[in-house]
Amino acid sequence: MALLSSGQHVARRVGSDVGHGAQACAPCRMAPAPEGSGDVLWSDPSRGPLDAYRMRASFSPRELQLFWEGEDTLRFKKAVFLALEKDPLFAGSRGMDLSLEKYRELSFLRCKRIFEYGLFGLGSLDQSLGSLDQSLLRFPVLFSCLGAYDWSLGAKLALHLMVFGSALYSLGSERHLRYIEKLLNMEIFGCFALTELSHGSNTQAIRTTAHYDPATEEFIIHSPDFEAAKFWVGNLGKTATHGVVFAQLYTPDGQCHGLHPFMVQIRDPKTLLPMPGVMVGDMGWKLGQNGLDNGFAMFHKVRIPRQDLLNRAGDVTPQGTYVTAFKDARQRFGASLGSLSSGRICITSVCVTNLQQAVCIAVRFSATRRQFGPTEEAEEIPVLEYRLQQWRLLPYLAAAYALDHFSKSLLLDLKGLYQGLLSGDRSAQQAELGREIHALAAAAKPLVSWTAQRGIQECREACGGHGYLAVNRLGDLRNDNDPNSTYEGDNNVLLRQTSRYLLSFLEHQGQDGACFQSPLQTMDFLQAYPGMLSQKFQGTRVADWLEPAAPLAAYTWLVCYLLRRSHQKVTQEKRSGHSDFEVVNSSQVYHLRTLALAFIELTVVQRFHKHTHGPDVPPALQAVLGRLSALYALWSLSQHTALLYQGGYLSGEQAGQALEDAILELCAQLKDDAVALVDVIAPPDFILNSPIGRADGELYKNLWGAVLQGRGVLERASWWQEFSVHRPVVGSLKSKL
Amino acid sequence: MALLSSGQHVARRVGSDVGHGAQACAPCRMAPAPEGSGDVLWSDPSRGPLDAYRMRASFSPRELQLFWEGEDTLRFKKAVFLALEKDPLFAGSRGMDLSLEKYRELSFLRCKRIFEYGLFGLGSLDQSLGSLDQSLLRFPVLFSCLGAYDWSLGAKLALHLMVFGSALYSLGSERHLRYIEKLLNMEIFGCFALTELSHGSNTQAIRTTAHYDPATEEFIIHSPDFEAAKFWVGNLGKTATHGVVFAQLYTPDGQCHGLHPFMVQIRDPKTLLPMPGVMVGDMGWKLGQNGLDNGFAMFHKVRIPRQDLLNRAGDVTPQGTYVTAFKDARQRFGASLGSLSSGRICITSVCVTNLQQAVCIAVRFSATRRQFGPTEEAEEIPVLEYRLQQWRLLPYLAAAYALDHFSKSLLLDLKGLYQGLLSGDRSAQQAELGREIHALAAAAKPLVSWTAQRGIQECREACGGHGYLAVNRLGDLRNDNDPNSTYEGDNNVLLRQTSRYLLSFLEHQGQDGACFQSPLQTMDFLQAYPGMLSQKFQGTRVADWLEPAAPLAAYTWLVCYLLRRSHQKVTQEKRSGHSDFEVVNSSQVYHLRTLALAFIELTVVQRFHKHTHGPDVPPALQAVLGRLSALYALWSLSQHTALLYQGGYLSGEQAGQALEDAILELCAQLKDDAVALVDVIAPPDFILNSPIGRADGELYKNLWGAVLQGRGVLERASWWQEFSVHRPVVGSLKSKL
Repeated sequence: MALLSSGQHVARRVGSDVGHGAQACAPCRMAPAPEGSGDVLWSDPSRGPLDAYRMRASFSPRELQLFWEGEDTLRFKKAVFLALEKDPLFAGSRGMDLSLEKYRELSFLRCKRIFEYGLFGLGSLDQSLGSLDQSLLRFPVLFSCLGAYDWSLGAKLALHLMVFGSALYSLGSERHLRYIEKLLNMEIFGCFALTELSHGSNTQAIRTTAHYDPATEEFIIHSPDFEAAKFWVGNLGKTATHGVVFAQLYTPDGQCHGLHPFMVQIRDPKTLLPMPGVMVGDMGWKLGQNGLDNGFAMFHKVRIPRQDLLNRAGDVTPQGTYVTAFKDARQRFGASLGSLSSGRICITSVCVTNLQQAVCIAVRFSATRRQFGPTEEAEEIPVLEYRLQQWRLLPYLAAAYALDHFSKSLLLDLKGLYQGLLSGDRSAQQAELGREIHALAAAAKPLVSWTAQRGIQECREACGGHGYLAVNRLGDLRNDNDPNSTYEGDNNVLLRQTSRYLLSFLEHQGQDGACFQSPLQTMDFLQAYPGMLSQKFQGTRVADWLEPAAPLAAYTWLVCYLLRRSHQKVTQEKRSGHSDFEVVNSSQVYHLRTLALAFIELTVVQRFHKHTHGPDVPPALQAVLGRLSALYALWSLSQHTALLYQGGYLSGEQAGQALEDAILELCAQLKDDAVALVDVIAPPDFILNSPIGRADGELYKNLWGAVLQGRGVLERASWWQEFSVHRPVVGSLKSKL
Repeated sequence: MALLSSGQHVARRVGSDVGHGAQACAPCRMAPAPEGSGDVLWSDPSRGPLDAYRMRASFSPRELQLFWEGEDTLRFKKAVFLALEKDPLFAGSRGMDLSLEKYRELSFLRCKRIFEYGLFGLGSLDQSLGSLDQSLLRFPVLFSCLGAYDWSLGAKLALHLMVFGSALYSLGSERHLRYIEKLLNMEIFGCFALTELSHGSNTQAIRTTAHYDPATEEFIIHSPDFEAAKFWVGNLGKTATHGVVFAQLYTPDGQCHGLHPFMVQIRDPKTLLPMPGVMVGDMGWKLGQNGLDNGFAMFHKVRIPRQDLLNRAGDVTPQGTYVTAFKDARQRFGASLGSLSSGRICITSVCVTNLQQAVCIAVRFSATRRQFGPTEEAEEIPVLEYRLQQWRLLPYLAAAYALDHFSKSLLLDLKGLYQGLLSGDRSAQQAELGREIHALAAAAKPLVSWTAQRGIQECREACGGHGYLAVNRLGDLRNDNDPNSTYEGDNNVLLRQTSRYLLSFLEHQGQDGACFQSPLQTMDFLQAYPGMLSQKFQGTRVADWLEPAAPLAAYTWLVCYLLRRSHQKVTQEKRSGHSDFEVVNSSQVYHLRTLALAFIELTVVQRFHKHTHGPDVPPALQAVLGRLSALYALWSLSQHTALLYQGGYLSGEQAGQALEDAILELCAQLKDDAVALVDVIAPPDFILNSPIGRADGELYKNLWGAVLQGRGVLERASWWQEFSVHRPVVGSLKSKL
């Protein structure tokens, strides 16, 4: 099959309609693919109530889809989605109508089925893709597909393969490779056991111990009390046979060498019964992801072989001497947890998937739900025609694109980092790259998870009561998305790491104002520092804000301003004689936290702007992509209008009003494209699984049909006699009050 | 029992410690009540990890509780809570671990039990309370108690008694009183059936019909198609025997007289089977409140007696002539739906209950959860000591108080309105009061439901992973609270009504700038209009914002500014020749919507300020209440900082920074009072039902214990052979891809 690499090729392939812009005839864009083209990427949406909007779209969804995803990715996604849709195991429920036991069972069975499909056969993936580059980026796509179906499944697999697997690989050594083979064959099932009942964010204070016993050449894994029980560990509740367990390593001389990872057997794979000395259980219902069995475990002097210490950072000799290449415990610890950036970046793609699905549902609903009309006699109009509804939803549609691109770009950055690591690059540049990616990931996860959380909630409310019905799936999206702001580092705690990076840059590098550079160029904005701070926005009209450079300049000013403000605050707190701890504590709110968020927003805005204004963008897509870019940038920026005024970048009434009007103007320009834009990012109906969000737009038929499929929906309640026979006597129990 | 009416009496009663302020000895405030005082209002919290904060509180929680609720209300709540706690029927689950069928059954049984306790025996309530005033306000207290236990129960009862019951009473006439007797005895069970599958907000477009047949003196209730099926009706799914069904009334001459309410029998009380011609079913899982059976119904030419038209607004003679005291259909319709204000005001109290419980959980968690310390060696500190955590939670604690007071004050306003209605008052003043309450309720519900929604989410995140565990209840609170932004009028749609009220005021009354008056004085702020608009904030320091008058003045300016801005926008849109519909459509975002919200916030701030600075406030409570008032006001105001700058009320960097610093300063001042403040509003542990939020503060013991109580928590999964025996062959299904 031919790999298409540019918009032009794509444009030629998808038909003669491309490039007509707003004048193009939409029906021909929706026409069936030419005969014989059995490999058509996706089927055309059914004709129906959404046609009116699809007809008015200014671009070809097919062309945008190819530009946005590339043909390879589209084909891969289609294959995965089709496999799930054809398999009856995936036809059943995936949500709150299941009992906990049943949901966990189904998730496990589905997980097993993914292995049977061999979707993880890396070799064959490589083969079909033809290049290493793409296969490194394929894993997140696969997880997004499975997660789009159900995050309980996606998370269960990711924890086993990516978190447990990559911990073994990156923290262990050759002697642990046999475990990787077993996990790939599902002979064992894994988990990653770091947090404890009383410790999450402060991982260094973890209290599980591992004492080395030279007599038997074993470590003794022990939980001193229930507060040190491993807690919140995904897969541990019912399935894990093995875990990477973090514990404080003690040598026979009584010295503690800090937190280290150990491979500990939890259950016997032959019986799934716990190993002696392990008390392991299921944490029960969570707010979402209930197909995933989060669990807890206490270890009572559990002995494991010396070799099961994952010894990349440090090892213990048979005699009991600790050996390490690292100078101190903190450095070792950093190396152990260094892989967290990849987890955080993957989470951004999880959140994007959730936001995209929610926006698809809400936009299709809004384009078909009619309520009120211009006059009492006139036909009611789709609620998408209301400017308020546009303003509520379309910025999140723009965010669904902007953050998708950003998330993918972070994966590319990460790939670069890994390539350096694998090739043994120990240059200063490589170290700087690591720091920069760490800082980006630590702010990206908060920004994207919060945007998704707020966006899904807005979508739920924008669909009114129907958005509150479980069958329409916005609840599952919200509930499954929610923990993204907590795990792999609490959002607010993570933001500290980004602000620390930014401040250190200023403190160490920028005294002469000349050498603000970072490998990924995210610090380039500082080259104009501090001169930038005296700039002011000169415009007063909507058109001034719609200049592509305007939001970029404003954001650059904003981040410079916040950086200076934060630096001043920290300096002032230090001068007051406060401890380092107190300085950071006092400078979070309105300073460091805001700085980290504004910085990552700027980075998203810059990258999305570049992507949508580059030479590869097919001409017919330039208008719509430009609008998405501008809307995301201005809408994000408008959350900081107070600061823009406070710091003097804006002044006068008109500048702020023009910003608001520009956002509304962009919403109005995008509303006729909104349905086509969600068609581009929407998974098939089977995956989206939302009657009010189906591609055919038959809102009421689909919803009515789905409700009637409910179990026992028309049946009399089994407990009817409690009303009809066992009648209450009002006040009969009054004496018991 | 003696009714205490003033803070002074209360102070004397609760002990000698009152009035000492921050110097008071806390342990003696927690000491047991004097012997013989069997009527002590609530038991002292167990000693434990929260003691440290309780010791540092600047006031006596008991004194504040008496000032805040009054002894009567406290006794009543205690009695209700105790009844539930003693009764095994209420000991079981109330959340997501129940099947839909089981949860609905339990909710029905619990509902029946409330009747058996006779808690609705109005007469006896009156007796025990001694005054009509208090009994009118008692119903919402009872519902808050039941809702604090579980909103599925609270909503089920409220829909039957208050919504169905008051619809019968206020829309019907004497001939319908027999139904009220039956509903009070639970011989029938009711629902309120207004919305349809395709119509919610636009109720006038409801399509169910009621044709009058003079031959049999019956109405024929009919759903023309499934899109006109009644939908979302609470209690309709499994329990309702009767419903107030809204339909378009047609007389034999073919004329449609608009929407009217009819009493329609849905099921046979003897069997709970549907009546002939009624297709009725259960809508299935929702995002929350799953113990409540929301349902749908289609009517196939269902005949009901002529007398079952609820004829307060219009009637049909036996011969088929329509008669009404109202001039036109719109006026009639307004009269039919006029009772919606009471529903909206009750919802504010629902949301306050939810927010209060979430804040209790999060504050107690934050006071006992320790993470990180000033140095690596030092003991870890409670996360409540972090300024960021204070800033995330304490404004919501202030909101939980401010909105509670506001909600209660609206109930008092409503009582005044009803007293006028019952006494036949038809004065212009009474009509004005109705309009004002309507405008207040239409904005109060959005403000309070959104604040609760965001607050609960913040509390969930502030409790980290443990907040995501279902057993800790933040999920149920969030899920059960969520529909409050949708039902009884979508929040965004409702806000239009408030802005219309405000604008009409300006247009019709204010040309001379002298007669801005409304019965409840919420429009008094306009007396300074437009002169107010030229005022500017003169301060630059934190102390300037902490002046009690400062936030009030700023808010007054803000609302005046938004009013003028909105007025200008609307005028300009009209001048451009746009239709009324388009004018409103174009003026919602950044204008009318913001105006309505800012207006209601101002009203909350004013009322809370007055309440906390009045002569009745016991001296020992003045400091803490003043801080709560200032924090709520400044925090709310800070969401509008951009507008304050844009409109010129603020200028320069310092004014805005001082506002931020003032908020942080108030948070720091309140953090030692936070635990005592949540003790005041917390229900008993049994009701709060959150291991991490228990009053004893034994965070980990409680959580660990609760997790171990999960069903089959330590058991091997029933499907263990799916892992251990039926092993997957990786890639075996590859050919099926």
